[in-house]
Amino acid sequence: MTVVLGWDIGGANIKLTVIRCRGYAVSDVKIFAEYFPVWKRGREKLPYKLKSMVERVGSTRPDLAAITMTAELSDVYFSKREGVNHIIDSVEKAMPTLDLRFLDVHGRLLTPDEARKHPLEVAAANWYASGWLASKLSDTCLLVDTGSTSTSIVPVVEGKVAAKGLNDLEKLMAGELVYTGALRTNVAAIVSHVPVRGVSTPVSSEFFAQSGDIHLLLGHITAEDYTVDTPDGRGVSMVEAAARVARVVCADLDLLSMEEVKTIASYVYEAQLGQILEALKRLTNSLKVDLKTSPAYVAGVGGEFIAGKALKMFGFKDVKPLSRFIGSEAAKATPSYALALMAAEFLKGRELRNWRLS
Amino acid sequence: MTVVLGWDIGGANIKLTVIRCRGYAVSDVKIFAEYFPVWKRGREKLPYKLKSMVERVGSTRPDLAAITMTAELSDVYFSKREGVNHIIDSVEKAMPTLDLRFLDVHGRLLTPDEARKHPLEVAAANWYASGWLASKLSDTCLLVDTGSTSTSIVPVVEGKVAAKGLNDLEKLMAGELVYTGALRTNVAAIVSHVPVRGVSTPVSSEFFAQSGDIHLLLGHITAEDYTVDTPDGRGVSMVEAAARVARVVCADLDLLSMEEVKTIASYVYEAQLGQILEALKRLTNSLKVDLKTSPAYVAGVGGEFIAGKALKMFGFKDVKPLSRFIGSEAAKATPSYALALMAAEFLKGRELRNWRLS
Repeated sequence: MTVVLGWDIGGANIKLTVIRCRGYAVSDVKIFAEYFPVWKRGREKLPYKLKSMVERVGSTRPDLAAITMTAELSDVYFSKREGVNHIIDSVEKAMPTLDLRFLDVHGRLLTPDEARKHPLEVAAANWYASGWLASKLSDTCLLVDTGSTSTSIVPVVEGKVAAKGLNDLEKLMAGELVYTGALRTNVAAIVSHVPVRGVSTPVSSEFFAQSGDIHLLLGHITAEDYTVDTPDGRGVSMVEAAARVARVVCADLDLLSMEEVKTIASYVYEAQLGQILEALKRLTNSLKVDLKTSPAYVAGVGGEFIAGKALKMFGFKDVKPLSRFIGSEAAKATPSYALALMAAEFLKGRELRNWRLS
Repeated sequence: MTVVLGWDIGGANIKLTVIRCRGYAVSDVKIFAEYFPVWKRGREKLPYKLKSMVERVGSTRPDLAAITMTAELSDVYFSKREGVNHIIDSVEKAMPTLDLRFLDVHGRLLTPDEARKHPLEVAAANWYASGWLASKLSDTCLLVDTGSTSTSIVPVVEGKVAAKGLNDLEKLMAGELVYTGALRTNVAAIVSHVPVRGVSTPVSSEFFAQSGDIHLLLGHITAEDYTVDTPDGRGVSMVEAAARVARVVCADLDLLSMEEVKTIASYVYEAQLGQILEALKRLTNSLKVDLKTSPAYVAGVGGEFIAGKALKMFGFKDVKPLSRFIGSEAAKATPSYALALMAAEFLKGRELRNWRLS
């Protein structure tokens, strides 16, 4: 029995995939996800949070832990360099006896010492794992992963991850990263105006409502899917979400009806789709192949109603949820699952069987 | 000796003006301002904060305290109704023995009982006091007050406050309220893209940098003027502000130079001016008089470099800082100063002398 961990340490969410193999076949997959906003809980708590998640894995000692991260962007760190180093330290503190490997933007699995030498190449490499997974499904394809906070778009061309950007800044420029997500995006960062009684009305710049409120109101997610803190600390009922959305135009449910609030929500949703469409345009403009005729895989909590919808609007013909191939739990934690699989193959020295659902 | 208090209880800042009169002449003016973000400190702390500010006034017992508020919009309250009632309660708790009056959007000074009956008319009436003050300077004019968080635009026509919107929602629609300010506005709520090396780059939707960072970098404010919390809890040096602004495009000072960060800052500033210009267009489109030929008074911490600059760009010929008439302290707390003066006149039953600096 071989046990491998795949970690995706984000600034707001930490995801852990545990893959068990018998011989060259995957025999078991478990996914753990925890909401851990490092800027609220504090960077000093990170090692303990990681440790408590390892403990949930159970008694078998893992043979390898592979790690990717995006938490270094959090402003609890002055720079990515400082963030990457602190995250490496935290991982070592949490898993002192394990063999550790850090993914870099070229798809290599670096030792902690190597990773410390190249912090900017270890920063935000999680998209590589997702692209690598997609390349196992189709030689040429697109992977779009819309998580709670951001959307990652990874082109795969002829079996290779073909991303242009090798850091978050380059990815924003290339249309490979869009800071819009299904749960935690500030509505005021999605739209500058919303329609109210036919008038295009400027919004408040405060953090009054987030995308989770929009998708709850529109029926895209359930209260159970709303796995992040609300902006006001209140609950995730329709009325509470509607009150938050009303506040975006400095109103409340005395001033706006539920219908009027839903009109605002629909508009914000369209704007999110517009953000993804803009990125797809940037990305495909600079690619030599026309990806629209290739498969597009969608993943993440907003995979279907944000990524999938936008891809179809853009003209992609063959849009498939990644969950159909790896299950819905793994599809919500794609980089973590993909990295665990990558690490297992790295350990075994060859491709594994049974990693697909079907 | 008559002593009057003018309170402006905002969600992020509380301002208190104390006016002392001898006979019918203002003999002394004192301004107190405290940063009190109610959503961070907690609504239950509000009465104690108000009480501690009253204690700073000194030994003379005030004859009247007039109050205006915008804190009811904070999401520590479910609705404005709830917020107004809690603020009235807090004021009564903090000043149990004083005669209290609450400003409403029609310019009336209501007793606490009357205010409780009309919570939506007491909500966000502070602009009325500012407009009333401007009307004492010019029969027909415009008052633009750019504070830390938002900008209030109040037209005065033939001696009367001529605002169309009577609540924040209507004011957003009418161009009388713009949620952009000189210190605390999330950069991601001002711009969706910024230029980086000639590429229009989408920004992160997180709260990474605020307008105070922009204006510090551009030399519009000093570190002393930066009187609000920073987004990352770090200091207000140029380097710390630049690191915050770099993070808006997911970068840091390893990836972007100071010059590149300043290019971003200039762009964000232009966008803020654009927000004010849009509001001026909305507002003047619906007015019958051409205000451009009348005086425009600017106030607030961003009065000159945001409000004043935008007014000149829009075509206003006669733009004057309000500080020239009431002093710079009062001009940074215009609604509070104006309300204190309004209350003093209400108490005396006639116009007072000596309220102008010159």
